[in-house]
Amino acid sequence: MPLPLPAPLPPGLALFTDLYELRMARAYLALGMERETAVFSLFARRLPRGRNFLLACGIEDLLDTLAALRFAPEDLDHLRALGEFPEEFLRWLAGFRFSGAIHAVPEGTPVFAEEPILEVVAPMAEAQLVETLAMNQVGLQTLLASKAARVVAAAAGRPVVDFGSRRAQGLDAAVAGARAFHLAGVAATSNVLAGARHGIPVAGTMAHSFVQAFDSEAEAFRAYARLYPETILLVDTYDTAEGVRRVVALARELGDAFRVRGVRLDSGDLLALSREARAILDAAGLRQVQVFASGGLDEERIAALLAAGAPIDAFGVGTDMSVSADAPALDLAYKLTAYAGVGRTKLSAGKRILPGRKQVFRRFRDGEAEEDVIARAEEALPGEPLLRPLMRDGRRLHPRPALAQARAETAARVAALPARLRALGPADPPYRVTISTALAAHEREVRARVAAGARGQGGGAPAR
Amino acid sequence: MPLPLPAPLPPGLALFTDLYELRMARAYLALGMERETAVFSLFARRLPRGRNFLLACGIEDLLDTLAALRFAPEDLDHLRALGEFPEEFLRWLAGFRFSGAIHAVPEGTPVFAEEPILEVVAPMAEAQLVETLAMNQVGLQTLLASKAARVVAAAAGRPVVDFGSRRAQGLDAAVAGARAFHLAGVAATSNVLAGARHGIPVAGTMAHSFVQAFDSEAEAFRAYARLYPETILLVDTYDTAEGVRRVVALARELGDAFRVRGVRLDSGDLLALSREARAILDAAGLRQVQVFASGGLDEERIAALLAAGAPIDAFGVGTDMSVSADAPALDLAYKLTAYAGVGRTKLSAGKRILPGRKQVFRRFRDGEAEEDVIARAEEALPGEPLLRPLMRDGRRLHPRPALAQARAETAARVAALPARLRALGPADPPYRVTISTALAAHEREVRARVAAGARGQGGGAPAR
Repeated sequence: MPLPLPAPLPPGLALFTDLYELRMARAYLALGMERETAVFSLFARRLPRGRNFLLACGIEDLLDTLAALRFAPEDLDHLRALGEFPEEFLRWLAGFRFSGAIHAVPEGTPVFAEEPILEVVAPMAEAQLVETLAMNQVGLQTLLASKAARVVAAAAGRPVVDFGSRRAQGLDAAVAGARAFHLAGVAATSNVLAGARHGIPVAGTMAHSFVQAFDSEAEAFRAYARLYPETILLVDTYDTAEGVRRVVALARELGDAFRVRGVRLDSGDLLALSREARAILDAAGLRQVQVFASGGLDEERIAALLAAGAPIDAFGVGTDMSVSADAPALDLAYKLTAYAGVGRTKLSAGKRILPGRKQVFRRFRDGEAEEDVIARAEEALPGEPLLRPLMRDGRRLHPRPALAQARAETAARVAALPARLRALGPADPPYRVTISTALAAHEREVRARVAAGARGQGGGAPAR
Repeated sequence: MPLPLPAPLPPGLALFTDLYELRMARAYLALGMERETAVFSLFARRLPRGRNFLLACGIEDLLDTLAALRFAPEDLDHLRALGEFPEEFLRWLAGFRFSGAIHAVPEGTPVFAEEPILEVVAPMAEAQLVETLAMNQVGLQTLLASKAARVVAAAAGRPVVDFGSRRAQGLDAAVAGARAFHLAGVAATSNVLAGARHGIPVAGTMAHSFVQAFDSEAEAFRAYARLYPETILLVDTYDTAEGVRRVVALARELGDAFRVRGVRLDSGDLLALSREARAILDAAGLRQVQVFASGGLDEERIAALLAAGAPIDAFGVGTDMSVSADAPALDLAYKLTAYAGVGRTKLSAGKRILPGRKQVFRRFRDGEAEEDVIARAEEALPGEPLLRPLMRDGRRLHPRPALAQARAETAARVAALPARLRALGPADPPYRVTISTALAAHEREVRARVAAGARGQGGGAPAR
């Protein structure tokens, strides 16, 4: 496989922010608050229905982006033209470099509700400005990796190929998604750009249009197999069983030169058709020709096919995986948990924020994860600390890990989860996540102080 | 508002294709089939549940992309390194220019199942290569515009602001999505890059983090209102009613200098809280201060709030609109309908393809759309022909329409739909779409010919 091509930052990326981030940053600057250290925590408020865990992803891309993020002159011209930002603020943006620290779980770590996926420790204005980008990128990739982990589990060792680029929600979703899928165990992608950017194996068969362009299916198969001897032939353009018989006929015609690797079924009753295809191939002595299935597949359908004994060797999965169809968004939050050395929270209904910098300790028994404890960052509790320092002073502390390595580690981390979490149904009981005594005490203290301040009773000097 | 910034093509975009497209293109080249004219039709096989129509979108971006799409030397190096493509094909790719014609409905046209959104008439290899990109881009924007049309309808004239960038599925989804939302009637976006690229009004208030960074909410409000006198203040960080009372206190403190435009509620029971906020503001004589609601909104919740009489003046809508949460993908297809002057179809179960080049005639009665007829392209039937020539020889036939103009035309086209289609519930009866006699006859003829060819009975000379 060729080496990954470098992925340049999209032009204008510094403007990929909500207007209020810029307004607040300018306010921090005007109020002299911009340099004070803030801690923001990025976490899922809850797991979507149908997820026993999330697979954290998108962190490495975010680190690269933060290290390189700059406001270009045309970005500043645009902001100036909005007519609301003073020159002092535009000058500050012109000199903007992300100078903060990032602590995060390694990509591919299973995470649960309320656990920080990453924490940003940075000057207030910087940490605020990157909120939209951080949530968008880590959210997208975590969403898609989490879905793919289920599809891979359902396929039970059979290769899964990402066919979803045409239905993904945009270019970025398709390319970053292909990477997230591969991290989660998907074998290959059909997307050539994703392969080029991330060093993912690429795969592809043929489309119905190729078959349609010939007056007969037999001729289309013959032409394609001549150019691509080890191809997979798409057999459902007209009649699936007939299509498989045409592959058998081609095998007889080509004799020893026949090296077609498989047939692909893309419509109809995949259980019945896979059995019929297998039977036709076996009866013709073509046991080595595999059956590849695609078309409307997700983890539930794959599991049902395999439970029913469908003789399918590999799956092409598109739409449902590419948009995480059953849970197309995460309830992700990026929340201020400390400012100027003081823990922060809010009291809004149903939107808890654990204050301060935190750590998550994962406890194992006989190699199996059994409980996570969310703790204050400075605590040293039993278990594996999941959050690691990845960036300091705006610079990566480690080179970007190779995707293959991250993928292997992801598989090991997922394998260490209890079996009930790796199953497709809801884990009963769900994974146990608790809060350390010290963090619980800190939360009580911060909530009491904030409530007093909110009531205007004390709260002392302004934070700045 | 500043002029839109030009959107450069993302580097590597020519590689945004499925590997099989390249394999097929190379096969067409090897077989001497690459120059033969193909017609591909892009259409939705069915409307997703919860949609009475789709709003076509993404076509203008696709035209710009096709006109500029080239394989860069590094793209070709990458393909060469895959080790499967002959130099002859790489040379052909190096000279690749999309030279085809595009017929499409204007952006913002309501479309229905099986109606072509666009048709590509181009040399076979070119039309094949752009499949993935065309489906991804038109699919994304059509998906999101269609969702936004419902949110806008639910808001019944109140402004809707797109807050979804943090939860959109990637950068492209957020930026192209903001444009699709605006086309569909959304008033503004929070995304500064989307505003810059597409000339969309940008809007933003303040985040909880700003309030949290102060020791008291009152102080945070005072500081923000001093910098942004006409701001909207976020009142739910601690206690919503208390937050509103603090706005009242600020009004008393500032007297004539008080120009705060509104309060924003972002959590809790928005019906009860909006009533309470309105009552507190009115009792203080602040009738001009608006109530802005956000947090977990979609068209159903907005409709329910307004039906219950919630005194809400504007809505911020994020996640559910940004990922089209109830229908996160379209069953879109890009199918070969003619090749070498001969109509094509396939016979796969449940996947009908209407052969040949087509036109859609929309019939109106008293200004209201009452029926669409899908016809052969050369027919001249009563009604408005929806598909128009937009590109010829790879060049646009018209400059890109201004977004504001397209938005106004979209509103008029949606307004011309029967009221039952614009309602949120399922239209009963659904909109009537029929197939012309000539197209039905052509379909029968092509299916018969294809079935005979598939059975190996006749079919005549190979298409090439």
